[in-house]
Amino acid sequence: MNTVVQEDPTLADVLRETLDQGDADRLRELVDAHAGQDIAHALTKLPRQQWQRLLERLDHEHAADIYAHLPTEQQTLLLEELEHDQATRLIGQLSYDDAAAVLHELEDEHAGTILSALPEDDQRVLNALLAYPEESAGRIMTPEYATVRPEWTVEEALDHLREHSDIAETVNTIFAVSPGGQLLGWARLKDLLLSRPRARVETVLRMDIISIEAHEDQEEAARRISHYDLDVLPVVDEHGAILGIITVDDVLDIIRDETTEDFHRMAAVSDLPLSMREASMRLLYRKRVGWLVILVAVNILSGAAIAFFEASIEAVVALVFFLPMVIATGGNAGAQASTLMVRALATGDIQMRDWLRLGTKEVLVATALGFAMAAAIWLAGNWLGDFAVANAIAIAMFLVVLFGSMFGMTLPFILTRLELDPATASAPLITSVVDVIGIIIYFGVATAILQLH
Amino acid sequence: MNTVVQEDPTLADVLRETLDQGDADRLRELVDAHAGQDIAHALTKLPRQQWQRLLERLDHEHAADIYAHLPTEQQTLLLEELEHDQATRLIGQLSYDDAAAVLHELEDEHAGTILSALPEDDQRVLNALLAYPEESAGRIMTPEYATVRPEWTVEEALDHLREHSDIAETVNTIFAVSPGGQLLGWARLKDLLLSRPRARVETVLRMDIISIEAHEDQEEAARRISHYDLDVLPVVDEHGAILGIITVDDVLDIIRDETTEDFHRMAAVSDLPLSMREASMRLLYRKRVGWLVILVAVNILSGAAIAFFEASIEAVVALVFFLPMVIATGGNAGAQASTLMVRALATGDIQMRDWLRLGTKEVLVATALGFAMAAAIWLAGNWLGDFAVANAIAIAMFLVVLFGSMFGMTLPFILTRLELDPATASAPLITSVVDVIGIIIYFGVATAILQLH
Repeated sequence: MNTVVQEDPTLADVLRETLDQGDADRLRELVDAHAGQDIAHALTKLPRQQWQRLLERLDHEHAADIYAHLPTEQQTLLLEELEHDQATRLIGQLSYDDAAAVLHELEDEHAGTILSALPEDDQRVLNALLAYPEESAGRIMTPEYATVRPEWTVEEALDHLREHSDIAETVNTIFAVSPGGQLLGWARLKDLLLSRPRARVETVLRMDIISIEAHEDQEEAARRISHYDLDVLPVVDEHGAILGIITVDDVLDIIRDETTEDFHRMAAVSDLPLSMREASMRLLYRKRVGWLVILVAVNILSGAAIAFFEASIEAVVALVFFLPMVIATGGNAGAQASTLMVRALATGDIQMRDWLRLGTKEVLVATALGFAMAAAIWLAGNWLGDFAVANAIAIAMFLVVLFGSMFGMTLPFILTRLELDPATASAPLITSVVDVIGIIIYFGVATAILQLH
Repeated sequence: MNTVVQEDPTLADVLRETLDQGDADRLRELVDAHAGQDIAHALTKLPRQQWQRLLERLDHEHAADIYAHLPTEQQTLLLEELEHDQATRLIGQLSYDDAAAVLHELEDEHAGTILSALPEDDQRVLNALLAYPEESAGRIMTPEYATVRPEWTVEEALDHLREHSDIAETVNTIFAVSPGGQLLGWARLKDLLLSRPRARVETVLRMDIISIEAHEDQEEAARRISHYDLDVLPVVDEHGAILGIITVDDVLDIIRDETTEDFHRMAAVSDLPLSMREASMRLLYRKRVGWLVILVAVNILSGAAIAFFEASIEAVVALVFFLPMVIATGGNAGAQASTLMVRALATGDIQMRDWLRLGTKEVLVATALGFAMAAAIWLAGNWLGDFAVANAIAIAMFLVVLFGSMFGMTLPFILTRLELDPATASAPLITSVVDVIGIIIYFGVATAILQLH
């Protein structure tokens, strides 16, 4: 993606200036003239004392609108710094799913204090959401929705929706439930609008309900919404009774965050929850050093392999010249193969049981790639070395590319089978392993063909 | 992401069996019992003759529903194989934006034949869409929407929407326009439902319109919908007159495809339009071999660098032992840094002008990482080599990690500045360049400290 957030280049600057001057009228004007998302985005570029100052100077409604659009981690940090009263007020203005996410990040004691200051209804709802496991559908659903009954008339249903439109996050899709809350069907709002007012709701109901159980993974919720082109997915308990809804805009955030996690894993960076802009240097260091240390341990084996073939190196120094080409190409082919698999597994394009078919395909593609690269290095070998050396390095190149591709292709499937994230098959991991095996193959082939000992 | 598409494991098998038996009733039952998306997904696992057979045996409505959920490339391939009549009928049933995407992929002549067989209205709309550049907002918008006039009463507006609900893809957000089509404001459908029927539409209109011009990039459309939590984004001409709308579910597909493109580029795979499942071996080979050849050319320099320092190697053979550790660690640190930047640029977390601040941060993080890795290899060096060698390789490790990190961090910004995709800064590219420079730094430091010549 080549898009960079388009924004008023000076909004952050204007905001800083206005805050520094303490001009309340100008601040109010500024906030009125921009979307809450944009003010929040500009705010993330200023030091946190400024945020606090801004929120304290605005009326509750504007403050809540801006607060609601800050990243969750920032909402949490800010809450820790604000007066108890203001913290409670901001949390009270968030939608339930957002409030639950922020409270979850707070220390238990602090979260408890804020929770207990909220109205009893809010407390009950938030405690219910927080009881679901992290990253579950239940945790991200909103319990603010309106349902209708199939035996109502269309007119009654529309009246009911009108009355509850303040609490209902979306009314484009309407769910019909039994007295016990069982999901019975759904209708588009426009189906209701199109019907005669006296018709019963059941006459326009559609029965092909896609729902998700509250304990299921939020990624599965994202997948269903995306696969079935839904604007809202109902969340149900084990008996099929509706508990809340997840909307498509919630899912956009989940997909973005999960994809970022995959990108980072593929580059051997451990999970980095904050944005790059906000991440502290200590955190960046911690999330990167782990894999570097693990991989250097793998690379010791590369060194050992080279040391083992020291005699071969001394006999034919040209072998060292071609070594980086062969093992790097094997690693690159492996990184290509693993990334193709990891991404296709993540999007659901392929599944676990496709591995045999894809493995066969990969053998053939890798063979073709191996031949092409072997031919290239054979020509270089004849030009810079001699015929025997050229043959040896060409054969080694073919085998290393084949091994790298198959290893890169297979590892994501093995990790999935072990119930680990396939994205752990990062380019650095593949490259390091292919280095070790590649060196052994390279010198093994060279020793045999050139009859070195 | 660890999610694998959950699906009836036998739907594809049952479908194949039913098609083989030619049991029309059972086929009809099967199609009725499943969502079009699921039948389409199962179908992609069968050979294409089977698809053709299925579509020919179904009534037009069911056939169109399944056809609409196939991937665009498959829709195009299928169209090339079907009878002209059936092809025209299927295209006629697609939404305009989907139809335009399929026609664009067809050969001009074939597309022209199909277009000319469509009703004149459809021809006009499709030709208008196809006139916008590829990957523009205009190309993916749907011209099927309903607008209201601010001077209408709420009742008139609702009547109008009822009448046009068959053509309007979404009615959750309603746009009000002038007689010339100028966007004047928007309202949620529930705002209209909540108002007195005699009130004027203008009394509920909101004026903070977010829109996009038709020639802008589709990724920018995705970004605005995601940033502003929109369910629909109006597309306008240069005078602000509405031309169509883009809905949030269109955007899910764009984000998925653009992200996949980024993943592939980060692994040095050129743009791969088809799914892994569908991609032919020839295509996979072609998209992978290009970068492998380019990178092997870079690796020749690594070989040359090693050859240049041959004397040093012969003097202190232990140097070869530690070489892979040092250059691989530098490459890994660089891959981490580049991936963090590429992803943060893609999500809009950071912008071009953040490079200086991020660069400063990266210098400090890379220094810490360099120290940690230098300490590790210094211990290994003392254990396996001697004190002087340990000092040399530790200093080299520090410098190579610092160089790798800074190179990996900077390249995505340089590519962005050159208006190239930052994701071209792939792990294999970073690794290969760091190999070359790393070898020079490594032997340069060793030669100086160990006083080799």
